[in-house]
Parts: sequence; structure tokens; C-alpha cells
Amino acid sequence: MLYDFRSFVNPGHYAFGKGSLKHLGELIERRKNENNDWTVFMIDHYFQDKKETLDRLPIGEKDLVFFIETKDEPKTTLVNKYRDQILAHQTTLPAVMVGMGGGTTMDYAKATGLMVTNPGDSKDYQGLDLIKNEGIYTIVIPTVSGTGAEVSMTAVLSGPEKKLGIKCDYTIPNEVLFDPELLATVPDSDRFFTGMDCYIHNVESLTGTWINSMGKAFAEKSNEICVKVFTNQIEDRLEADEQMMVASIMGGNSITYAQVGVCHALSYGLAVVLGTHHGVGNCIVFNQLEKYYPKGYQLFKEMQALQGVEIPSGITAGCSEEQFDQMVDVAWALEHMWNNVFGPDWEKHISKDEIKALFKKM
Amino acid sequence: MLYDFRSFVNPGHYAFGKGSLKHLGELIERRKNENNDWTVFMIDHYFQDKKETLDRLPIGEKDLVFFIETKDEPKTTLVNKYRDQILAHQTTLPAVMVGMGGGTTMDYAKATGLMVTNPGDSKDYQGLDLIKNEGIYTIVIPTVSGTGAEVSMTAVLSGPEKKLGIKCDYTIPNEVLFDPELLATVPDSDRFFTGMDCYIHNVESLTGTWINSMGKAFAEKSNEICVKVFTNQIEDRLEADEQMMVASIMGGNSITYAQVGVCHALSYGLAVVLGTHHGVGNCIVFNQLEKYYPKGYQLFKEMQALQGVEIPSGITAGCSEEQFDQMVDVAWALEHMWNNVFGPDWEKHISKDEIKALFKKM
Repeated sequence: MLYDFRSFVNPGHYAFGKGSLKHLGELIERRKNENNDWTVFMIDHYFQDKKETLDRLPIGEKDLVFFIETKDEPKTTLVNKYRDQILAHQTTLPAVMVGMGGGTTMDYAKATGLMVTNPGDSKDYQGLDLIKNEGIYTIVIPTVSGTGAEVSMTAVLSGPEKKLGIKCDYTIPNEVLFDPELLATVPDSDRFFTGMDCYIHNVESLTGTWINSMGKAFAEKSNEICVKVFTNQIEDRLEADEQMMVASIMGGNSITYAQVGVCHALSYGLAVVLGTHHGVGNCIVFNQLEKYYPKGYQLFKEMQALQGVEIPSGITAGCSEEQFDQMVDVAWALEHMWNNVFGPDWEKHISKDEIKALFKKM
Repeated sequence: MLYDFRSFVNPGHYAFGKGSLKHLGELIERRKNENNDWTVFMIDHYFQDKKETLDRLPIGEKDLVFFIETKDEPKTTLVNKYRDQILAHQTTLPAVMVGMGGGTTMDYAKATGLMVTNPGDSKDYQGLDLIKNEGIYTIVIPTVSGTGAEVSMTAVLSGPEKKLGIKCDYTIPNEVLFDPELLATVPDSDRFFTGMDCYIHNVESLTGTWINSMGKAFAEKSNEICVKVFTNQIEDRLEADEQMMVASIMGGNSITYAQVGVCHALSYGLAVVLGTHHGVGNCIVFNQLEKYYPKGYQLFKEMQALQGVEIPSGITAGCSEEQFDQMVDVAWALEHMWNNVFGPDWEKHISKDEIKALFKKM
């Protein structure tokens, strides 16, 4: 187990329901005071030309808005840069950090909100409990379902040396606003890849050795919903989107009491070496993991067929042996994931050659 | 709906797992400071002669211990009394309030922790959002599963005029320590009645009109576990107890996004007039509700038969007409529950005579 004992922090507040975005202004106002009276908005670049949505956001004159490029996974260098811009924007600290988007945008908001109150380079905080001070009050607004970033104690970051989250009690968002109407325009492929992120981390935690009754209940219910949604058992899209928001919360909560496995370890390898995005990366990897997760794999393929989404293949075709070795090293170093899959003697159950062979198939 | 919009507070921390009681001292120490360095313990009277358990509690010389009599439901008069004793105990306020027991003890801890920092009579705070100040940091430790008090935003109290909770953001415990080993000695009947409290509020919320996707997912998973446990599908008692802790959390969470129904309304009538305890009261009432919850009722009877627990009958046999009228009035006044069951025109769907006839059968 990663923790002998830990009293886990829950996300502070949940504002849940269709149309709740219109209350964002109230939520922000509650956190302002005489000294801290402005807001930072980190918004997925997708919304940059969506005037109708932007007009609904309570952006004031003193506020600072970043549109977040999500082609790459969150980087420590950019977190540092955003932080510096925030500190230069006003003479006071912001009252609220809003992160609206998918996992990347939410993780930028979580990490940057912390770096505003913790000095130095964000790469020095990659790891467990390295953050010293509570961050800016953070409200996240997921606009795609499945990452669990909205409720997780990790802000995943790629630094110059490693892909590793900033993980501590303060990383959990203070407030989550869930408005399923924001999901209406997510393209089918993104919806599938992100939903499968949730499905896959549930499969990994449920079949792992570290899970307890709490993680199990959350992961089981989360996956029941994922399967219902992606086998088209819920006709109404808005209803399905609302339920997937709950699946995402529960999947995220589950990971707190469990651990991911083979797919996440390998997917991190792809992310570091090729910059492959987490959702699609997980699908590319899981597509090769029938041996490790036979039941989960079968359902995954059924859902993929029903959604008519193609999983990219051949992405490692042009890689050099050094690149493959680097992918293997990144994956191999994630001991806690392997330990969860195979137990403490995990090195007896898998080899670097086996992992490399998997990467070569992707 | 009770709320047009509300951003709901989650319980602050969960410390979950077998043997976690031994970490209570650490949890308390984290909350102490120079000025506030002592603890109030409210402990179910059941533990008064359980030396082995008491010896494991980190009770210091400056601390104040109350053993809570649980024959009656929590009363505003006793909350006031406990508060006065706490204020007289030291010149400073306590750092932590610990509530260890069932719903009654946890609700006493929640309510008293708030009354230490809010002046006046606790009866004046019965209702929604009447509390002005955050209370003492509260850690609750459930020793029986099902009430959901450990995660709910209500501290149910019986005042001179009404049974109505203190309900606000601050009522939610700051921390919950879940140790399933503490449930080992709960008598079968108490285990059943309290477990059925959870089952019944799930049935009521799932069949009600107010529920949303969040409440639904929590209630469904919670009831799946309740049914597994009370149809003896989990052989190991400790494992079953651990899972019921999760069912209780999820049932409690569900109510945040939903509402109870007929059973709770009538059970409140029994509580106010006859002092009937909530868990057994719910079972006595639900035993007569086949018409309103046919499926839930059938499963309830199956579980009762399998557990071999007898539900008290004839408890209203000696009641006067005035007492019956009073029970009906208490139940009738709980408009939000009836509205959840039948919708806004609920008065067209049930009559006071029908309710009285139900009470006469109990």
C-alpha cells in the first residue's frame, strides 16, 4: 500500500445539476474579501471562440483569463509561467482560481493555484506531500467526463525529468461545479477516450491488490454507469452526460482508496516519450492488454465497436530502440502501480522485454 | 425541491480501514494549538464498561468525557446542558469534539460542537441555515452502520415543540474515522434496525421525485450493499461490517441529493409522541408500508426473515386519540417529505385519516 494510514481529504463542495454554471458568480463572490477580490480563469482553448459560453462566465475587469492549450499534457514549465503572470497581474493575490475544461485544464488550475502560494519551481513539488502551503481557492468545472481530475488529490504534471503528479491534501479542488449541459458539444471520440480513462482506471483498481471496500464500491458503481452509457443503454444524451459526471466523480474517488495498474504505467511511457494524451493513450495501451485484463478488455472492445470510435494504431512504428527503452524505463519506475497489479514481488511477474514488446504493438 | 441551487459541503476527511482507531490520537493532535489543546469525547454509554475499548482512546487529563445515554433521541435541552459543561470545563475552547457511537451520539457531538460557538438555546437553531458560526472541529466514529449521521448535514434534534434537525454547511463532521472492528459486538437486532435505516432511506429517495443522478448512484450502490449484507451473501462478519460502513456513507450522501418519504415522516411522529428510536421506529413503520413501497417492502421482509429479527408490534395499542392526532400532525407537517413522495400536489394523494389508520396498525 502507498499509505499505511491516511485520513483522506474530500473535495470541499459539489454544486451539481443542469444549468448550475449560471451560479458560478455566486460561488466566486463568496470567496472574495477586501484584499483578494479578483479571479483567475483557466479555460480550455476549445471555448476560445464559443462566445455563448464565454458570455455566461462572470469575468470581471480585474480578472485574468488564460486559454489553455491542451494538445500536450500539463507541463511544469508552463505552470511556472502562468504563476509568474498571476503574481504580476495585481498587487494582491487572486481570491479564486477557476479551471474549466478537461483533465489538462483542471490539473493546470490545481497546480498553478498551489504554485501561487508555494515558492520555486513546480518540478520540485512533483511527488507526495511536498507542498507546504494551501493554494488559492480553486473551483473546477469539468467539460468532459472521466478523468476524475475534478475530485482527485493529484495534479498530473510532466517535468523535464518525469511525469509525476503534485499530490497532497491541498491539491484537491475546493469546489466542483458540475453542469452536464457543458458536455453537449464534446466530439464522440473525445467523449469515448475520456470515458474510457474512467472505465480503465476502475478496471485497474478493481482487479488490483490494494483496493479496500470504499474504493471497490466507488469503482463498481462508476463502471456500471460507464458501461450503461457506452453500450448506449441511456438514450437521452443529456441524461447520459449527467450520469457520466457521477461515474467520473466515483472513479476519481475510487483511486483514492486503490491504485491504477498496467495500462496507466505504460500510458505514462507514451506520454513522456511521445507526448500522447492521457485518454487516447490509455485506449491505445488497453487495446493491447487482453492478457492482463481479459474481462475488462472484452467489454472495452464491445463499447468501442458500439461507439464506432477508432483507436489510433502504429503510433510507435517510427520509434528508435532508445525511445522504446525510455518508454519501458518510465513505465518500470512506477513501482506502486506494478505492486498493485502483482503484489510486492511484481518483478517476478513481468519483464522489461514483455513491456517493450507491448509498446512495439501500439 | 428543497434547494433551487446549493453547493453542498462534503465531509472534510475520511480515515477508513480496519484498526484505524489507533490513529485517533494523531488526528486530534493535528487540530490542537497553543490556545486550544483539549478534547471533548462524547461516547455511547454502551462503551462505559468496555475497558478494552476505552483504554484505546487518547483521553488526556484536560479532556472532558460524556457517556451518552441513547435510550432517547437527541434532545435540545441536553445539547444545551452539555455545551454549558464544556464552556465551564476550561478557560479555553476545546480543539476537538469526538463523537463515538451511533446516530444519537454522533448527532449530539455535531450539535453540541456547534452550540459551543453559537450563543443561546439549541432549539432556536432547529431548521435550515440558522447557525452563524463554524463549530468545534468534529471527528465522528460510527460504531454501528446505517444512520448516515457520520456524513450528513443534519443533526436531528427533538426540541420542546418539534423534532427537526439543525441543518447547515457547518453541521457536516470535519472528519470521520471508520474502523469496522468497532462493529464486532453490535447485537443482531441493533445491526438490523440501523442497517434498515439506511436501506429504507435509500428506497425512499430512489422512489421519490426529487432525486438527481448523484443521489441515485449513491442510493443504488448503498442498497446493493445493504441487500448483500442482510441476505447473508457476505460470510465474513468483519468484511460485511466494513462494507456496511460504505453503504452508510453512500446512503447518507444520497440524501444530500434527494429526500426521504412516507416512512421517515411517520417515524418522526412515533419519535415525538412515543420517543421511539429512529432505527426501530423506521422498521415498525416500514412494516406497514407495502402499499407505498411494494418492491422495497418485499425485500425488507425477506431480509428480516433471514436475520431472524422481530419487529416490535402493538406499540401504539395504548395510545389515546389525542396521541394519534399528534402523531399525524407531526408527520403531516413534514411537507418536503410528502412532496418528494407525491409531488407538489401531495395533499391530493394522502389524507390524515389514512396516516392515522397506519399508526393504529403499529
